[in-house]
Amino acid sequence: MRADVHRFSLTDPGDVSGLAAAIAAGRIDPATIVAVIGKTPGNGLVNDYTRGYLTLSLALLIGGATGETPDAVRARVPFVFSGGVEGVLSPHYSVFTVVADAAPAQPGVPALAVGVAFTPELSPSDIGRQAQIDATAAAVDAAMAQAKIATPADVHFVQVKGPAFTLADIVASAAAGRPAATDNPGKLMGFGRAASALGVAGALGEVPAERAVESAVFKDFSLFSAVASISAGVEVRTNEVIVVGLSTAWSGPLTIGHRTMADALDIGAVHALAGSLGFTPGVQIAADEAARIRAAFVKCEAARDGLVRGRPHTMLNDGDIDQQRHIRGAVGAIVASVLNDTALFVSGGAEHQGPDGGGTIAVIAERH
Amino acid sequence: MRADVHRFSLTDPGDVSGLAAAIAAGRIDPATIVAVIGKTPGNGLVNDYTRGYLTLSLALLIGGATGETPDAVRARVPFVFSGGVEGVLSPHYSVFTVVADAAPAQPGVPALAVGVAFTPELSPSDIGRQAQIDATAAAVDAAMAQAKIATPADVHFVQVKGPAFTLADIVASAAAGRPAATDNPGKLMGFGRAASALGVAGALGEVPAERAVESAVFKDFSLFSAVASISAGVEVRTNEVIVVGLSTAWSGPLTIGHRTMADALDIGAVHALAGSLGFTPGVQIAADEAARIRAAFVKCEAARDGLVRGRPHTMLNDGDIDQQRHIRGAVGAIVASVLNDTALFVSGGAEHQGPDGGGTIAVIAERH
Amino acid sequence: MRADVHRFSLTDPGDVSGLAAAIAAGRIDPATIVAVIGKTPGNGLVNDYTRGYLTLSLALLIGGATGETPDAVRARVPFVFSGGVEGVLSPHYSVFTVVADAAPAQPGVPALAVGVAFTPELSPSDIGRQAQIDATAAAVDAAMAQAKIATPADVHFVQVKGPAFTLADIVASAAAGRPAATDNPGKLMGFGRAASALGVAGALGEVPAERAVESAVFKDFSLFSAVASISAGVEVRTNEVIVVGLSTAWSGPLTIGHRTMADALDIGAVHALAGSLGFTPGVQIAADEAARIRAAFVKCEAARDGLVRGRPHTMLNDGDIDQQRHIRGAVGAIVASVLNDTALFVSGGAEHQGPDGGGTIAVIAERH
Amino acid sequence: MRADVHRFSLTDPGDVSGLAAAIAAGRIDPATIVAVIGKTPGNGLVNDYTRGYLTLSLALLIGGATGETPDAVRARVPFVFSGGVEGVLSPHYSVFTVVADAAPAQPGVPALAVGVAFTPELSPSDIGRQAQIDATAAAVDAAMAQAKIATPADVHFVQVKGPAFTLADIVASAAAGRPAATDNPGKLMGFGRAASALGVAGALGEVPAERAVESAVFKDFSLFSAVASISAGVEVRTNEVIVVGLSTAWSGPLTIGHRTMADALDIGAVHALAGSLGFTPGVQIAADEAARIRAAFVKCEAARDGLVRGRPHTMLNDGDIDQQRHIRGAVGAIVASVLNDTALFVSGGAEHQGPDGGGTIAVIAERH
Repeated sequence: MRADVHRFSLTDPGDVSGLAAAIAAGRIDPATIVAVIGKTPGNGLVNDYTRGYLTLSLALLIGGATGETPDAVRARVPFVFSGGVEGVLSPHYSVFTVVADAAPAQPGVPALAVGVAFTPELSPSDIGRQAQIDATAAAVDAAMAQAKIATPADVHFVQVKGPAFTLADIVASAAAGRPAATDNPGKLMGFGRAASALGVAGALGEVPAERAVESAVFKDFSLFSAVASISAGVEVRTNEVIVVGLSTAWSGPLTIGHRTMADALDIGAVHALAGSLGFTPGVQIAADEAARIRAAFVKCEAARDGLVRGRPHTMLNDGDIDQQRHIRGAVGAIVASVLNDTALFVSGGAEHQGPDGGGTIAVIAERH
Repeated sequence: MRADVHRFSLTDPGDVSGLAAAIAAGRIDPATIVAVIGKTPGNGLVNDYTRGYLTLSLALLIGGATGETPDAVRARVPFVFSGGVEGVLSPHYSVFTVVADAAPAQPGVPALAVGVAFTPELSPSDIGRQAQIDATAAAVDAAMAQAKIATPADVHFVQVKGPAFTLADIVASAAAGRPAATDNPGKLMGFGRAASALGVAGALGEVPAERAVESAVFKDFSLFSAVASISAGVEVRTNEVIVVGLSTAWSGPLTIGHRTMADALDIGAVHALAGSLGFTPGVQIAADEAARIRAAFVKCEAARDGLVRGRPHTMLNDGDIDQQRHIRGAVGAIVASVLNDTALFVSGGAEHQGPDGGGTIAVIAERH
Repeated sequence: MRADVHRFSLTDPGDVSGLAAAIAAGRIDPATIVAVIGKTPGNGLVNDYTRGYLTLSLALLIGGATGETPDAVRARVPFVFSGGVEGVLSPHYSVFTVVADAAPAQPGVPALAVGVAFTPELSPSDIGRQAQIDATAAAVDAAMAQAKIATPADVHFVQVKGPAFTLADIVASAAAGRPAATDNPGKLMGFGRAASALGVAGALGEVPAERAVESAVFKDFSLFSAVASISAGVEVRTNEVIVVGLSTAWSGPLTIGHRTMADALDIGAVHALAGSLGFTPGVQIAADEAARIRAAFVKCEAARDGLVRGRPHTMLNDGDIDQQRHIRGAVGAIVASVLNDTALFVSGGAEHQGPDGGGTIAVIAERH
Repeated sequence: MRADVHRFSLTDPGDVSGLAAAIAAGRIDPATIVAVIGKTPGNGLVNDYTRGYLTLSLALLIGGATGETPDAVRARVPFVFSGGVEGVLSPHYSVFTVVADAAPAQPGVPALAVGVAFTPELSPSDIGRQAQIDATAAAVDAAMAQAKIATPADVHFVQVKGPAFTLADIVASAAAGRPAATDNPGKLMGFGRAASALGVAGALGEVPAERAVESAVFKDFSLFSAVASISAGVEVRTNEVIVVGLSTAWSGPLTIGHRTMADALDIGAVHALAGSLGFTPGVQIAADEAARIRAAFVKCEAARDGLVRGRPHTMLNDGDIDQQRHIRGAVGAIVASVLNDTALFVSGGAEHQGPDGGGTIAVIAERH
């Protein structure tokens, strides 16, 4: 098997002409698409409908090309979109394909490996609770097996997209005797990210299973996954899980690496990751080398103690701009300045995803 | 003469306890304060009153210590505050002092030099027009002479704070037969920054005087100053001008340098500036070395063509977050990640201040 | 012919289950749908993609029911969506249907009449210019003829949805030698609304044709239409025109009326309109009577002189919330409080639509 | 004694020229000022410094006129400012004065009566807890006694301004072993409003004392005060309490009334209150009659069940505009349209202040 990643620029979530052209030109066989991950030009919060819009647009396009219904496409392909392209960031979507590879894999050379899985549908009262932790862990196991990734150490990125609920959903659930963990829609998104991250961490052994439990959600931030990236949106109802790593069962020119960012200013982690992927050391990857980058994924969040390296930040006191928009713009710019690439998947809300106040970065690139 | 720079953290614009403690402890003689430049926790737009609040708080504090009235302090000391500390940035204010130096200047070793001047009061109809260009240029000349800076090449930073006007002011001016350049308050701030920058560029010979004219304002962006940093706010009525550079007429341990940022991702300019100031090369200045930094000033803006390095950005289409807030958060984070310092004066609206889509950076530091 | 209006609540622009259920139950024949007007939960500004999302969702639904392609549905049915449901307002969409009426029209009793038309495609350089004025006027004529409305006095509401363009479109147009009226995307939306309104006013004789010209756009606000309601969005490329009025050529139980609002506090206009439609006088229409309301349309805007009844407002100085969001929330609440109905189409940006600082209101209701 | 209310328009919180002119002209004796209540042009959330700025400006002005220090003025005069003048609302401040009245009170005719009191300083860990409830109740008792208001039935308005804390304060308190009720600064403001409202309700007997307890805070919304109006801000450290009512111990031409608003559309309550104060019935008070209004106070909030009269609102799902800004703009416009007055004190966050999803309105006016 051989995995490939194709990244397309996006302006309007209703305009998927980039992928359409690639399909029309025969560069992508739509039947081989296994996942799409992207950043849309919304606010990334509860009332962000750009994610659902792009999902519908792509499901229509792919289904039109394969003969599937849009619903069948959505049942097969995880569409993981995160809103918010603050500052220098550029909206885009990355299409993952898997094809049978005529050429035999190079023995002993691990290549990019991808697996996907879905949890059952989750209701408002499942979010942030043990049900979501366990379902996510099971899906990670399934996706890892599908990807033929041998050990957790070879997993470099686990993207999860889980459901968000509006106030109406939350009120209805409570009225039906199943109260959600919080009645604040935005806060419930955070609970969902946190529980899903613990599910990933438990599945991969980053956190002992007995500690990856509901009582730790949003409480014990010493527990985290170094490879999980969780988003939430009103446009999905299951946890969609994409596991990406390295496996000698796969072939092709792509590789992946990841690093933990200790805090929002940890530019050293970005340089270290670039170095590990064979990029020439320097303050910024040159444009011709940067063309080797196929996709990059960043999780980050505003430090809860209100400080960045000892100085106060204002992100958590701001009533005009949500803290996630602040931190995405800041950390995204730092990573973009090193990678010389602005089409980055930068996502806030890194609860239990990387250390508190820090985050994670993963990059897929052509092997050096 | 000897110039010094003292930087204080700020949370609430009504809390100037940092400077108060320094005065009380005798670390700063309030009579020696010649200028204050800072970033406040507002939105940095027309309806940002944090700038005026901090101005009043400091004028009261200084006047209380010197026996001057607050108005007398404001007539003597430029208070240049810019709102908006997006992302990792930290609100703060930098106090410039000038003292007679008992020790003779080291012959031939240039040291930090500071001069200040004020234009006459400007009315809404002056903003963005030749009157503002000319008045600013004259004030730059005066401040440069006061600072005993020999040549324009020794000027590394010119901070100007000019007036902004609310809709009511603009409407009143038009009714009095003196229409402003635009009836949009936010846009008029931009006109004022643009004209003031051309005034600086003309005074320093960066732009030939015959081209530093009203007809070029907001039109010919090939004309710019590489050292100007202009802010506007409703709390001032003149252009307050602070010229900072190097001069052998001054003594003390501080120096200053500047660089042009070609675009928002020009992290190389930041590294080059750090290198020129003697910081150890690397991806980030170490914390102990970063303690040598006394203040840093950055101007930046969203590229008008909608692109950063060929990829679309969304800053100019966003109806929820002003483009200045986007770009400050992004470029500020990049600079902070290299300098290992978040208490940066990062200001948007860089019309004619650095190349279009780019900006400038200046750093005051202890000599290596 | 008989026109009907069916209003559906909306939460997510991807959820059109309201109309789907009505079609499934046989309450609406999808082939009879001639127009849809609605308010979506976006910001109503350039980067509002909820309008396009709902358009796609409805085109898919209707096309799926009639056998048309989504594109064919969009070419036939104007979908006019305006984003922004501030304060008490409720997102919704109103579906206009026209059916042949077996029963003869009541002689001499005018009933609700609807006609639609489309201009040719408009490019960025057409917006705000004579081309848009003239094309709109021609489309109004065509729609009025289709609606068999005898005289302009019988036209009570003209809804136009015209194109908006992002910065990328504007830059590309300028590069191709066809500069737009402004390079600010949000401002260009305003130009388009203004020119379209003058086109309506010219077609209906509210403004003499020789004064409904490009040179008056955004300049002479004494010229306006009392029945025009113009919105703009990136999801359309023509001016889509819906003319609604009264005609004895039509039958059915519905009627329509309109009033001019002199300013944002003109609650008297709302009461007067309610009275003219036969609602019982009082401070608020009782719930059972309010059920007669089928749809209501309001245009409003922040007074350009910064005053409401002599006191300053802050809407035009605000850098955090766009002035359209302010005024929609305010005027929408006033109208809602009288009509006892929050599912109102309230749209900002009323340039040349009603008097400066005021606006218009139209209500479709069952005849008393 | 005789109480008077003087209302001044505000644009910039640093510009208190309105009151300055009144003092200079002898219309107000600054020594007689007992309280100031106003709306400032900030966002009304945690990072709103316009409240503190206006407080400082007024304390300086009054102290300058009386010879008191600003701190002495602040210790004597409650300054209660609420940020956020959305939509048609106009920033302003209302100055309450009390003078000895040479003329005897009209026997049996109750007149406007005012009393003020302060609680001890409150720390982050007191907010939302029994300590704040009890201290507020005691202050209400004291202010009522000072005002010589005979019975709770004669109390028509109780304004409280309590402390808000930034994230840094909250983190520090938790580190010191005194965790706050929540670590979210905005949410903690809500806890403070809620507990203070229960304190008022308990003191006035609106809620039995045994139910005005910490365990009911933010939980049992059937418990509320019909006259309490609570704001919070970082600029104060005590609960400042102003009790306004009617008493035959006072003289003068002013009266006050209040009504409960059942929900956000309860325009009937506004008309009923206007009627009770002798205004001519109609859809809007005429301008000449509206001149009798001296001040109006409104509390409101977005209904927690996401519905206004059965239709969904979007206020609680919005990530761009805080729900308080939405509801102030909406309810403020409704009240303004009836009173024909936009200089209203409209404040969101009506937890336990009026019924859930509704609020309260109080008007001070010259007697008919």
